[in-house]
This record gives sequence, structure tokens and C-alpha cells, in this order.
Amino acid sequence: MKRKKKLTIAIQGIATSFHEVAAFTYFGEDIDRVECLTFHALCESLKMGACDFAMMAIENSIAGSILPNYFLLQDYHFNIVGEVYLPIHMHLLASPGVKMEQIRTIESHPMAIRQCSDYLQRLKGVEVRESDDTALSAKRVGEGRLKDTAAIANEYAAKKFGLQILEKRIETHKKNFTRFLVLSRNEVEVPGANKASLSFEVRNEAGSLADVLMTFKDNEINLTKIQSIPIIGKPNEYSIHVDVEWKRRKNYDQCIQRILRQVHNLNILGEYKKAKIEYK
Amino acid sequence: MKRKKKLTIAIQGIATSFHEVAAFTYFGEDIDRVECLTFHALCESLKMGACDFAMMAIENSIAGSILPNYFLLQDYHFNIVGEVYLPIHMHLLASPGVKMEQIRTIESHPMAIRQCSDYLQRLKGVEVRESDDTALSAKRVGEGRLKDTAAIANEYAAKKFGLQILEKRIETHKKNFTRFLVLSRNEVEVPGANKASLSFEVRNEAGSLADVLMTFKDNEINLTKIQSIPIIGKPNEYSIHVDVEWKRRKNYDQCIQRILRQVHNLNILGEYKKAKIEYK
Repeated sequence: MKRKKKLTIAIQGIATSFHEVAAFTYFGEDIDRVECLTFHALCESLKMGACDFAMMAIENSIAGSILPNYFLLQDYHFNIVGEVYLPIHMHLLASPGVKMEQIRTIESHPMAIRQCSDYLQRLKGVEVRESDDTALSAKRVGEGRLKDTAAIANEYAAKKFGLQILEKRIETHKKNFTRFLVLSRNEVEVPGANKASLSFEVRNEAGSLADVLMTFKDNEINLTKIQSIPIIGKPNEYSIHVDVEWKRRKNYDQCIQRILRQVHNLNILGEYKKAKIEYK
Repeated sequence: MKRKKKLTIAIQGIATSFHEVAAFTYFGEDIDRVECLTFHALCESLKMGACDFAMMAIENSIAGSILPNYFLLQDYHFNIVGEVYLPIHMHLLASPGVKMEQIRTIESHPMAIRQCSDYLQRLKGVEVRESDDTALSAKRVGEGRLKDTAAIANEYAAKKFGLQILEKRIETHKKNFTRFLVLSRNEVEVPGANKASLSFEVRNEAGSLADVLMTFKDNEINLTKIQSIPIIGKPNEYSIHVDVEWKRRKNYDQCIQRILRQVHNLNILGEYKKAKIEYK
């Protein structure tokens, strides 16, 4: 009997990180993972063929777009083949038996810290320390049996590293979500694709962007995200990133043909199936 | 002789922080400062009348928009009365005589850390720690005469806290800049205003944003920034933030009249004079 090879997915962070949860959500739990401590390492892993796909956080409802990841996407010429919206619930985790009064340091990933800023602001005499990963912080507290340090991480990390939940749901906004992209180094035609991520440049003058959006409108293409990104070193130019959705593929194809003549440096970052946000 | 009262400006961070440099750039150096360790404290200071104006970083060419500050702007109903673009040069600062090999910890503001990510990634065996302010980190190293800790901060902090520049210009992108907003709690009519920041909501359907941008175009209003911001808890709705510029005020006023009928919840966050980006 032939055994099917498991898919290998690169994630940012270690086991139980939000990237791993996103990978499970998209691919199911029967996968192998490559743990990468930085987004740069994640991209290198995908480029070198150490994994089949990579999972990359791209925006959060509180912290906004992760602009450096857009730069990485462009530099590496990866293709977006899917997306995941993950509700983000964050807890304060500590070693069993430890009380809040004993905590002197709280550590986590900078994004997690920012998402819990209201809670952290109310604490007195506690130092907040940045780490590479929420799960890694939980691991450090658990394995070191630390009594004066707590980690901000999810419930999976609490379970895996034997920590108690000292404070539940400390994220500022309870309907906080992070959007992840599924990346491939190869061009993949995704069956039933109904969403695309595009980037292009327009002249910095009244109306050049309006004309492009009119082309989307004429073809019944819906915009779900738009963002101008400064072009570093060129203060008067900028590139536009959009996510678009369609009901009929033909409309989208026609639209792209027309837009090619309206903009410069059009990049199709990926065509994929749109995901839903489901709050628990 | 009547002595003119100095203006008091709230800054994020302490003396020599980039916020202070931005305040000097806009108001000149003959000002009093209120040092605030968080953006929340900055807003409270302005709201309570502890200062005349507040300086708030709003976006960076590398790290992108500081979305939580947009939320603060809306919550506090402050008015934008000006802007400053500041080139951001960052150095690694250490106590005099200390060598690179001695450094075990580097600390700075998370934004500064992110902007030096390429440099930091190349270092081995050094822990990166987050602080509230670049200048505060420099102060801590200087006043504590620390031998194993370096701070990422600017040349003003090096001078003030008696530190040497261990490594110059460690920012990843050399043409990196941060944009700051000048905020007032009162409505101020800025003479010669030629730029405005607006936010509004549009229906999530093909073309509603295109129609708005067409109105800008028809009135010869130029877009310098556009960004869709998710409305937390409403996954299918979003608000749009734009910065616009005009040559003739009349065009802008007409445009606003028309746009009021095209969108929901239009907010004029401020009308002010546009600033230039000048690289050294």
C-alpha cells in the first residue's frame, strides 16, 4: 500500500503558535511543520523547498497590515493560493500555582503585546518584553518553571507547556482577527478562485486611481481591501494594493486586461478562494 | 514688557525622542514639553488641557500606518492642524569604551526595533528588548552606565545621555521616514490649508468607493493616501481613510458637499498645510 506523503507547511513561530492554528485550519491537522522564528526565515524555507507551502500573517483587525510582509511577498515572487481568517483570543499564562502579584515580566510577540495594550497599561510594576513568538514565550515560562514571568499566548500553548491561564481573554477587542495567507513558490491554478490580491502603481495625480476603480466597478468586481504603500525613497510615488472579489471569472479576466493599460507594474500576487471570518 | 507664554507640546517619549525632534521641526525649539510614555497618555494630556498641542506619529515608510492611533484620533475627536515628515536615522548607542562583543541586550521602542530588523537579524546571542521609547532606552544605558546593554536611538539621545555611537545608521532602509500629526483639542482654521484627512464608510459593494474617488477627480482633488480599515466586529464593512490635497479651496469645499451624499459617517479629521519630505 502506498503511503501518501504528508504536506509540509512552514509556520512563523513554534508548535501552538497562531500560525500553526491557521495551518491546521487550512490544511487539517495531519501535516508536518517547519518552525521559523522570523518571516524572513519563513520565506527562505519556502524558496529553498524545505516546505510545500508557507503560512504568513498579513493583517490584523487591530494592528493593521504587516507592511514588511507585503515587501517580502514582492521580493520573493511567491503566489498566494489561499487565505485564513483566525479569531485571536489571548490569555495570560503562568506556571501552575503562581499568583498575579508574583509576576514582574510579561513576554510575548510584539503583535500580541500590541493587541493586549489596554490590559497591559493597567498593570503596574510589570516589565513587558518582546519575543519572537507567543508560543515560544509560553514554552520558556513552562520549561523554566518561571515564577516571576508570564506569557501572552493561546490556550493550545497553555496545554502543551503545562501552564495555567492566569487571566482569560486579555485582548483589547474581543472580535480581533488575524488574516493569514497561504503561499506557494509555484504558480498554482486554484479551482473556483473568486478573490485576487493585486498590486500596481498609478501616477500621483487627481483621478488616476479613480479610473482604475471605475474599471473594477464596470466589471462588477468588488473591492475588499485597498491600501496605498509608499515607495521608499520616492516620496511622490506610491503603489496600491487591492484585494478584489468576483462572482463571474469572465468579468475579472476582462477587467485585468483593461487595467493592464491603466497602470504600471501590475502584479497578480495570487488568485484564490475567499475565506470567511467566523467568530466563536 | 510682556513676556510671551511658551507653547506646551505633548510628545510621546522623553527629551530627544523622535517625537521631540518632530515638535522642534514644527514649532521651533522654544517650547515646553509634556513627556508621555504612551499614545493613550498623550491623548489624555491633550484632552485635559495639560498642553496646547500634541505630536503623534501616524505612519512610517517601513512599518506602515499605526492603526491604533487612527482609532485614538477618532475616539478623542481631536483635530489635525499640521503634519511633519521626519527622516529617521537610527544608531546603536552604548556606554563609552564598551565594545560590540560585550553587548548582550539591545533595547528600544518596538517601531525602532522593526525598522532595524535586518541589522538585528545578523547579530548572534543578543536579546532584543522592547521599551516605551528610544530616548528612554538610551537614558537607561547612560544613567546606569550599563556595559552589556545597547540602545537603538538617535544622535540627540547619544549626546544628551553621554553615549558613544557603536554602530551608525542601522535602519534597514536609508530613506525611512515617519509622519507625525500635530493635534489640537479645538477646532482651528489653518490659514492656507491645502490638505485634509477624511474618514468615511461605504457600502461593501462593487463601485461605491469608485464613485467617491470619481467625485475627488471631478473636483481636481489629489489623493495622497488611501486605506481601508476593518470595522471591528463587522467583517463585511469597512471604513476608508484618505488624505487629499487641492490647489483651489473652492474645489475641495464643493467636493465635500457632494461626498456627504455618497458616504456614511464622514469625518473631517483635519484641514492643514501639507509638509514636504526632505532627505538629508
